[in-house]
Amino acid sequence: MQSWQLPEHVADVLPTMARQLESAREQLLALFRVHGYELVQPPLMEYSNSLLTHIDAGLSLKTIRVADQISGRQLGIRADITPQVARIDAHLLSANNGINRLCYAGAVLHARPDGFFSTREPLQVGAELYGYDGIAADIELVDLMLKSMALADFGDVLLSLGHIGVFRALAEAAHLDREQSAQLLALMQDKDAEAVRKLVAGWQLDGMWAKAFSLLPTLYGGREILAAARAKLPDLSAVGKALDELQAVCDAFPEQALHIDLSELRVDNYHTGLLYAAYGAKSHDAVARGGRYDGLGGHFGRARPATGFSFDLRTFIGRLPDAGRSPVIMVAQQDAAAAREAVAELRAQGQCVIVDYGMEHNGSANIAGRLKNIDGSWQIVGV
Amino acid sequence: MQSWQLPEHVADVLPTMARQLESAREQLLALFRVHGYELVQPPLMEYSNSLLTHIDAGLSLKTIRVADQISGRQLGIRADITPQVARIDAHLLSANNGINRLCYAGAVLHARPDGFFSTREPLQVGAELYGYDGIAADIELVDLMLKSMALADFGDVLLSLGHIGVFRALAEAAHLDREQSAQLLALMQDKDAEAVRKLVAGWQLDGMWAKAFSLLPTLYGGREILAAARAKLPDLSAVGKALDELQAVCDAFPEQALHIDLSELRVDNYHTGLLYAAYGAKSHDAVARGGRYDGLGGHFGRARPATGFSFDLRTFIGRLPDAGRSPVIMVAQQDAAAAREAVAELRAQGQCVIVDYGMEHNGSANIAGRLKNIDGSWQIVGV
Repeated sequence: MQSWQLPEHVADVLPTMARQLESAREQLLALFRVHGYELVQPPLMEYSNSLLTHIDAGLSLKTIRVADQISGRQLGIRADITPQVARIDAHLLSANNGINRLCYAGAVLHARPDGFFSTREPLQVGAELYGYDGIAADIELVDLMLKSMALADFGDVLLSLGHIGVFRALAEAAHLDREQSAQLLALMQDKDAEAVRKLVAGWQLDGMWAKAFSLLPTLYGGREILAAARAKLPDLSAVGKALDELQAVCDAFPEQALHIDLSELRVDNYHTGLLYAAYGAKSHDAVARGGRYDGLGGHFGRARPATGFSFDLRTFIGRLPDAGRSPVIMVAQQDAAAAREAVAELRAQGQCVIVDYGMEHNGSANIAGRLKNIDGSWQIVGV
Repeated sequence: MQSWQLPEHVADVLPTMARQLESAREQLLALFRVHGYELVQPPLMEYSNSLLTHIDAGLSLKTIRVADQISGRQLGIRADITPQVARIDAHLLSANNGINRLCYAGAVLHARPDGFFSTREPLQVGAELYGYDGIAADIELVDLMLKSMALADFGDVLLSLGHIGVFRALAEAAHLDREQSAQLLALMQDKDAEAVRKLVAGWQLDGMWAKAFSLLPTLYGGREILAAARAKLPDLSAVGKALDELQAVCDAFPEQALHIDLSELRVDNYHTGLLYAAYGAKSHDAVARGGRYDGLGGHFGRARPATGFSFDLRTFIGRLPDAGRSPVIMVAQQDAAAAREAVAELRAQGQCVIVDYGMEHNGSANIAGRLKNIDGSWQIVGV
């Protein structure tokens, strides 16, 4: 094993890509700022019981744990930033009983990668709105998610919508217990309509519920699917509310290509309402995902309505505008002292000036000129 | 123990500070860019034998280790970024035999804090120049270090200079073995002149060397100390070279307040030449530290001349210009759809516009105006 070898699913970001990523990060934070989202930077490392706010086996398996040498308690390296932001809203910003708009951009670590091509060090960027339970808040976040994706070239973006409220309403009305509900949810997530039908048949539910659960995996498609769902699903007020919310989101983005899937429930366990995701034409997996997760802050003493999204900025790599290598102006080492002011002025204008020690160097690919003293003034001479 | 409680020496960064830090980060990366330093982003997590390139008990104790669930090998969370950048220069950028100027900004984790007031999650920012062994390269980096510090208000900055070459030359000439050398270095680092004298006396060295080692802790002060050192220390060529290099740095910064200390050897074990640090008037510990560390890349198959510095951007907190909270323009929820274009235009100009859902919100401290439709056009009305 060579000393320079990196672990699997871990990578360096080299200059060209790093510059693109940094520029995208700056643009995203500026975008969030003009929408009123304030930046927070929670720590990489916390007590693991603060990071794991809810029963989520997936997140727990992904979270790297170590013993704290100071307290002896168990520390975790964060695998998700959302619970940290919920903690900040619940505890540190608790003087505000109204709306907190917060955003973040930071690394997380996964003990195991999500998939064969996934990184174990996503650069998680996201925005969250706390304190308002109206669908308008979800629409605001969907809009911000789509604007975020527009900074890169993902081809035509498809907005995917779901709503955990439909499944939850049916499960409650059918009196499923917790275990049944989890079992059924897992099959729905696997899109296994046949298995759903069989499982539900075995439970000997009232026919209406069995039919409704079997229907869910078939209720996917374009905007028209909402009318079909309304016609076919049991007339429960919570189902009606979820469909109304989906309708409101569809109406808010009349031009946007979108897909609705009432069994699309591949969510974090903390989600409670509308679910949204954005797919690129060139990507099989969602680029960004979000949803409503009312109550997560309860773990920290203040349950609040909340909705938000996040994505791994590393998936933007290769889809960002290539700024090219900055043109470089060289100044000979023996001139550096005398040219000091001219060099400072060029740099203040944003130009890259490098002292030439007479060796090859990493900017040599793109030398735009050399600073030379011509008749007493410093001028850039082409190469 | 409350769920919202953070481990000791770990903290959240809340909006006002986060905005300042982010702005400083952007300014620093822009500063590095115009000086020709290209950004790299090595991973947070590597095999621990890649992170610990040299015998450094301090770094080893600070490095958090976990078992890799994929390879079973030991992973480390980086406690220092410099060895990673040396790896990149040695291995990934090895096509360039000349100069590589590289910079970085990223979190590191320390299992134990450096001191009572230290964070365990420094935000390490730094710049490194590989491939040139002349003192001009060190001077370039000292200049960049001082320019970095000038972005914050540290009061009058003191440049502190040392040179490990003086001690190394004396230790070699006196034929100290490795253990003696380490023992003596530790006492020098503690500034314990009396203990140095006693220890050296016990070794029955030739009187010239005993005298030289006893002298070292007394050789500190302003620019004048170099002449004193030249007069009093043994006439070894390596000592002369080190003093010449220190003189060159002094001459390069004629206006800069500076301090020279030939026993100031509080360095990482990889340093090999000039040592530099910057102190603020209001800070007891150095804000930024750097030095020459030729050969570190040898661990990765390519030993190269190198010099560079780094600092914890978190120490800039509270010393950065306070941009204040951005003024916020509110638009009523019922107007949001109709005002869409006007809102987009304001945001494109960098203004923060927030939809008002009729609730208190985190921008309410600084409402600059409300967007209203007056006679058919959207106008900002003061509050």
